Amino acid sequence: MHDERATTRIRLDLAYDGTAFAGWARQPGQRTVQGVLEDALATIFRRHAPAPQLTVAGRTDAGVHALGQVAHLDLDDEQLASLDLPHRPEAKRGPGGAEALRRRINGILGSDADARITAATVAPEGFDARFSAVWRRYEYRVADGATLLNPLLRGHTLAVADALDAAVMDQAARALPGLHDWAGFCKPRDGATTIRTLLDFSWCRGDDGVLRAEVLADAFCHSMVRALVGASLAVGRGRLGPADLVRIRDAAARGNEFPVAAAKGLTLLEVGYPEDGALALRAAQTRGVRQLP
Amino acid sequence: MHDERATTRIRLDLAYDGTAFAGWARQPGQRTVQGVLEDALATIFRRHAPAPQLTVAGRTDAGVHALGQVAHLDLDDEQLASLDLPHRPEAKRGPGGAEALRRRINGILGSDADARITAATVAPEGFDARFSAVWRRYEYRVADGATLLNPLLRGHTLAVADALDAAVMDQAARALPGLHDWAGFCKPRDGATTIRTLLDFSWCRGDDGVLRAEVLADAFCHSMVRALVGASLAVGRGRLGPADLVRIRDAAARGNEFPVAAAKGLTLLEVGYPEDGALALRAAQTRGVRQLP
Repeated sequence: MHDERATTRIRLDLAYDGTAFAGWARQPGQRTVQGVLEDALATIFRRHAPAPQLTVAGRTDAGVHALGQVAHLDLDDEQLASLDLPHRPEAKRGPGGAEALRRRINGILGSDADARITAATVAPEGFDARFSAVWRRYEYRVADGATLLNPLLRGHTLAVADALDAAVMDQAARALPGLHDWAGFCKPRDGATTIRTLLDFSWCRGDDGVLRAEVLADAFCHSMVRALVGASLAVGRGRLGPADLVRIRDAAARGNEFPVAAAKGLTLLEVGYPEDGALALRAAQTRGVRQLP
Repeated sequence: MHDERATTRIRLDLAYDGTAFAGWARQPGQRTVQGVLEDALATIFRRHAPAPQLTVAGRTDAGVHALGQVAHLDLDDEQLASLDLPHRPEAKRGPGGAEALRRRINGILGSDADARITAATVAPEGFDARFSAVWRRYEYRVADGATLLNPLLRGHTLAVADALDAAVMDQAARALPGLHDWAGFCKPRDGATTIRTLLDFSWCRGDDGVLRAEVLADAFCHSMVRALVGASLAVGRGRLGPADLVRIRDAAARGNEFPVAAAKGLTLLEVGYPEDGALALRAAQTRGVRQLP
């Protein structure tokens, strides 16, 4: 546990417009959310190396947005004490230190930045942004056919020319949740399980005509939400029937019946964590590979 | 009147993200909304010159957005007949022709464009997008101080570091409406009156923390909304008192007590027109220069 290293774990809640980022994960020569934030941390703690690194709840792909992303970092006492709180020195180790960090990071990013820290707090004992999480909730937005895409919202909404059948998409989506092997909706990655519990999947059309999918799972394998949405779009266009999605799920192997949907319509809305007392237990459970019962 | 030239007037309702436009009005070497739309019209009617030109309700500045902009154009019979409606030739002169024009323009702009036609209709007798309008309604959005600007909405929201006093801004704004000479809130233009009726001006803070101004007037002189907002921001920061706005208005001369607010927070929401029977009368009235009673 991080207490052995006499560090304080800080939870960061953050939001970003994914358009100009090559995803979350740091990559050489690419502008990524992790890269931009860790560069800001390196600047803030330049006299107190090593710079803190971030662990994130959901490693979003290039172009995917987030309003409720969660990450954590560990600060040693010297780093924590270095946070500049000239008027409230007593606050450095309490919530004030985390809030000072939030302001410093946002100050470096700029008031008009495409990423910002919405909250920073001292994490409860046992908290791990990735392994303590019990669910992730995503939204996907589609303006279809005659729906008049609001140009001010087009950065996070997919526009498709066809008119989609929202009712049949919703019917097909609601048949999918449960604990399954989602290999039919994943890009395989070595050593990563494709067994996940899809908790909720639905489609509805808003008053503005925009179709919204809500997708909730304990965790997602790679490109799973965009594959679920891509399959839904094929259903909405009548190219697949609603029962095909269950068939594809149960085949548990990725075929070529539908393409994944574009990243731009996808936003990570929220990450759920258990009560403070259950954080460490949950993290220990999650570190094991999920297996079918 | 346009009937003398045997033309059909089409009303276009349109929306645009102003970020990448140098405003509405066509300018050589600049990408403008009028330029992009008139270029699309020139393409659509390339075999039926001259290309139609647009008359607009509100000539927005560079960077200003619109969700409810209105424009009109006149098509001669040959142009109207040229609209490609292979399956419904009977519709060319009815509403179908205007709808076909909407689809053609949007097809040229692209489904992901920063401007699009939300509706196209055959205009009622006497309609003039500019001169028949009885009011224009704008919104201005500001994320201040600790308000957490949603990065997905930052393209049409101004971010300011100061915490603003929304109550005093609202109080100051509500004292301003009426028929006045607004030279204190305008950039003077040769031959253009600065006498306008401000119908409504208010500020409120939404559930998301974002401050929104609503500004309604029969018409606006140049940069008037941005000046009213700029003066409001000075009030919200305590640099001007609420009574100063009435004093500046009544001085009827532009001073340097506040800067105009940035274009990016401003969106034209709606243009109001009278009942069909009053359109021509209203247009005739408006063509005369407004005078104080």
